Amino acid sequence: MQPVVSREVHLKSRPEYLPVLENFEIVETPIPALDEQQVLIRNLFFSVDPYMRGRMVERAGANSFQLGKPMEGACIGVVLKSRSTDIKVGDYVLGEKSWRDYYISAGTGLTKIEPNGNPVQAYLGVLGMPGFTAYLGLYKVGQLHEGETVFVSAAAGAVGNVVCQLAKLKGCKVIGSAGSDEKVRWLREHGGIEAFNYRKVESIRGALQQLCPAGIDLYFDNVGGPHLEAALECMKTHGRIVLCGMMSKMEQGNRPFALPNLNLAVRQRLTLTGFRASDHLDLYAKFSSDMSGWIEEGKIVWTETIVNGLENAPAAFLGLFKGENLGKMLVRL
Amino acid sequence: MQPVVSREVHLKSRPEYLPVLENFEIVETPIPALDEQQVLIRNLFFSVDPYMRGRMVERAGANSFQLGKPMEGACIGVVLKSRSTDIKVGDYVLGEKSWRDYYISAGTGLTKIEPNGNPVQAYLGVLGMPGFTAYLGLYKVGQLHEGETVFVSAAAGAVGNVVCQLAKLKGCKVIGSAGSDEKVRWLREHGGIEAFNYRKVESIRGALQQLCPAGIDLYFDNVGGPHLEAALECMKTHGRIVLCGMMSKMEQGNRPFALPNLNLAVRQRLTLTGFRASDHLDLYAKFSSDMSGWIEEGKIVWTETIVNGLENAPAAFLGLFKGENLGKMLVRL
Repeated sequence: MQPVVSREVHLKSRPEYLPVLENFEIVETPIPALDEQQVLIRNLFFSVDPYMRGRMVERAGANSFQLGKPMEGACIGVVLKSRSTDIKVGDYVLGEKSWRDYYISAGTGLTKIEPNGNPVQAYLGVLGMPGFTAYLGLYKVGQLHEGETVFVSAAAGAVGNVVCQLAKLKGCKVIGSAGSDEKVRWLREHGGIEAFNYRKVESIRGALQQLCPAGIDLYFDNVGGPHLEAALECMKTHGRIVLCGMMSKMEQGNRPFALPNLNLAVRQRLTLTGFRASDHLDLYAKFSSDMSGWIEEGKIVWTETIVNGLENAPAAFLGLFKGENLGKMLVRL
Repeated sequence: MQPVVSREVHLKSRPEYLPVLENFEIVETPIPALDEQQVLIRNLFFSVDPYMRGRMVERAGANSFQLGKPMEGACIGVVLKSRSTDIKVGDYVLGEKSWRDYYISAGTGLTKIEPNGNPVQAYLGVLGMPGFTAYLGLYKVGQLHEGETVFVSAAAGAVGNVVCQLAKLKGCKVIGSAGSDEKVRWLREHGGIEAFNYRKVESIRGALQQLCPAGIDLYFDNVGGPHLEAALECMKTHGRIVLCGMMSKMEQGNRPFALPNLNLAVRQRLTLTGFRASDHLDLYAKFSSDMSGWIEEGKIVWTETIVNGLENAPAAFLGLFKGENLGKMLVRL
């Protein structure tokens, strides 16, 4: 029987700085009947990601979410009804219509998923954009070489988690920073890398000097802020810094973090490169095939944090900014 | 008749932050007789450069000047006496033994100069390391393309001056920032570029938005600080920033400038690259030949600021940090 209403999480107001629960509202909307070529999809999982905060504000080029409309992003669903010739009932599909129970699609923007023995939600994590971001940042943007020393911040996060594994695959020495003892333990025991809890060390710089006394070849920066400042002090000459996110700018209330030592980029002849995975979609097929192979060979370990229930999605999202996730943060419906 | 004493400028004490006159001392030293294969050189010009400040302090990897020894750097001299089989009396030579009247050399580290109609001191500027730095930074590090929009800070300085000309050669739109109306006038009238006096505009960012409303493809950063902050706000997506110097860090007393907006490097997918000309000496011959050709064809305009007398070298050097030079700052003996 077709469901008649879908719950959706709408953007109710725009955040001043860090998002708060009051920015969201759960709304029930009727589900219309299907037109020709349309399919009805029930979401199984959707992704909450730090970048979504940037879309919650109004700014030129931000592709802003609209007030009174649902939050959007990657989701995995199953087809409940179909009037499409291409998509069948029972197919798993990846879409960009997250933060709701059900949606109707004419098929554009949907990608069929063949789980191949992997949990479907892996296509929102290690086999999806976070995995692709790690792959691009290390191999294309960062030009990683065999045997280098790699430092990763937010190493237990959705992207960092995969970065550590991919660097290990290249025979690199990997040092990860994370914000809890539990994450550090996971990184050491399951991730097989050296790790430290940045909230407990005397200084990040000191920890880096101890763990990589010969310096860092590549820093995969997921946070900016004090991590970037410390890494700059520890880079080898001609080192590379891949700038993937600057979330820690948001940790300090309204006063943005300011970087006092970028002069070291001149002294040490460093390259810092900001990138966004969506600029490189031509490499996605290669990534998918490489990553599936590595997973099949048991070379990649990953983890995820699952929050149950659409009504808990805003809290899960806010949790990202408090470091509540180990691996990819997902909402299961 | 052979001179018997040479005046030298010694490093007397190390600067706390900005160098001061008291850090220097003029010392007379006897000139010994020549051994076999040695030559005696009378310096005609030497270079004072901002990078020398970094060598005045003691720090690992800084190639520090020694207390009680002469300041060193690029100089152009003429051979007065020779017991060498390769170098003749009257030859012009480029060396690294600046801040003194005379020096003796066994020939290693000397490069013979053929002026080819250019003033010999051009080999300390447009045809020397500053010119090479501009050439490398734009063409190799910055990967400049025909017709791009280029912003240059310290555009009337030794390096910036040449950067503007080389970018114009590639058919680029060039915007230069300088610290006096005289420099801005020179850049407009002789340099043929758009320029503004950063001390007189309401904001650097505003000036940039007005002069390059479509954004900057390449920022050649000679100063760091507020210029870098403003340029970050005006870069096109995928823009490049070439980091050549961060002198403005030193303008603000002991409190280093801190950059509040490097997050834009992620949002706009920018690349920032620090470089040093001495890492790329394999390209020097190509540079020499290219630059000589362009000068011969009248395609390059340059200027210089000459201070007379060894005794005035410390003041000339300090003047660099106050922006007293238009083009290369040189000391003539």
